[in-house]
Amino acid sequence: MLVVKIGGTEGLNWDPICQDVLELHRQGRPVVLVHGGSAEANALGEALGHPPRFVTSPSGFTSRYTDARTLEIFAMAVLGRVNARLVERLLALGVPAVGLTGMDGYLLVARRKATIRVVENGKRKVLRGDYTGRIQEVRPDLVQRLVEGGYVPVVAPLAISTEGEMVNVDADRAAASLAGALKAQALVLLTAAPGLLRNFPDEASLIPRLAAHELEQAMAYAQGRMKKKVLAAQEALAQGVPQVIIADGRVQERPILAALEGAGTHIHAG
Amino acid sequence: MLVVKIGGTEGLNWDPICQDVLELHRQGRPVVLVHGGSAEANALGEALGHPPRFVTSPSGFTSRYTDARTLEIFAMAVLGRVNARLVERLLALGVPAVGLTGMDGYLLVARRKATIRVVENGKRKVLRGDYTGRIQEVRPDLVQRLVEGGYVPVVAPLAISTEGEMVNVDADRAAASLAGALKAQALVLLTAAPGLLRNFPDEASLIPRLAAHELEQAMAYAQGRMKKKVLAAQEALAQGVPQVIIADGRVQERPILAALEGAGTHIHAG
Repeated sequence: MLVVKIGGTEGLNWDPICQDVLELHRQGRPVVLVHGGSAEANALGEALGHPPRFVTSPSGFTSRYTDARTLEIFAMAVLGRVNARLVERLLALGVPAVGLTGMDGYLLVARRKATIRVVENGKRKVLRGDYTGRIQEVRPDLVQRLVEGGYVPVVAPLAISTEGEMVNVDADRAAASLAGALKAQALVLLTAAPGLLRNFPDEASLIPRLAAHELEQAMAYAQGRMKKKVLAAQEALAQGVPQVIIADGRVQERPILAALEGAGTHIHAG
Repeated sequence: MLVVKIGGTEGLNWDPICQDVLELHRQGRPVVLVHGGSAEANALGEALGHPPRFVTSPSGFTSRYTDARTLEIFAMAVLGRVNARLVERLLALGVPAVGLTGMDGYLLVARRKATIRVVENGKRKVLRGDYTGRIQEVRPDLVQRLVEGGYVPVVAPLAISTEGEMVNVDADRAAASLAGALKAQALVLLTAAPGLLRNFPDEASLIPRLAAHELEQAMAYAQGRMKKKVLAAQEALAQGVPQVIIADGRVQERPILAALEGAGTHIHAG
């Protein structure tokens, strides 16, 4: 089993990614896709007069402040747009894709963080009414049943809270949790960079291999969204996934297969 | 197996519908939900500056003209909003719902009608670039697999065309095709009326029972959207579903269970 996380449409090249999924499917290698969609959610929010608001946590992670309206916009964008179009693309190639969210069948159960601590203009603040969740439990049965049936699940980053509410979750970390629960052999995080760079944005400073114990240190040179990927890698390894690969999703050919063959940053347990 | 079609949010009362689904699930009676979402798609189109355009066919059926942008809006509304919220509501009650579209796993394969004939201001016209489909084939395997696993599928009215394109399909007729392919014992069409009325809108003129051969005649007094329901009933009966019930989705208590016990208009084969 392989779990592959891709972004929304921004910066990534869907066609070669879908071609690789087809190839893996033909080889009988089960694959589960997890995707994001922040750029689409932002664009839809702008178009609807409710632009996104990004906040930074005291520990330096950036995330979307998700009030009730933002959650609706996020769901329309990631599920009704990104997920539907990705499923359509895969089906057109002959891949029996099934679009899901982490809500379906209680796949991803999250603890809603209604109150979040943020730093704005150097000041600490508390924001309420947030619909973001931290994954607490994964029930992989639904995905396993679909994979056994020969389907390719495509999962949008929504989860159900322990109180029964829809919440937005981080797609990289959702992919890590899913990979752990599914006992995946590898988690591939495709991104708009060649992998983890020692001197961002110098692409020649790509780190080809890392051990799990070096990740804490790697967090220091990870910039922006890459911090979430390093965190996701840590979480996947801690949950028993033997290998996490951060690789380039922008390439014209074989992004997933090339990652499996050595491209990008390979992070191993131990 | 029972297939229940409900509308979007407009005019229907979701809570008692979801309660009934929970009751059926507890009784071990498999149920598949199919929903619409026209009102939500219209509202989203208005908000995004792309209002809906309705057209009437030469035979008197009203439908949405679905250009590429309208299809995107429709998908965001029916999948990202109606489907997600319905799944959320069911999960909160304890029903293991799984949101799907007719695209998933090639569940509903449609012939795209790129060119449609319409009548506008008494004149016949041809419109091109439409993304509406007529269902040509149902592959019920995915839904059967989910039902066998104890899940409750919730299906949004999108299908995949024979050319691999996402298309909008009529939800009533999608429910009829699904009921036929799943060999459902009954198809329940919940609507914002007590059933089929002989003298619309006089609710006292409800027709409690009809035989299949009387449907042609019934088409004469079906008004507006009800015409599609009568057509869907005909199609379901023709595909071997023994009973179709058109019943009131606005009631405060037991809309589905009451329909199964005799409320609404019951249409039987023969």
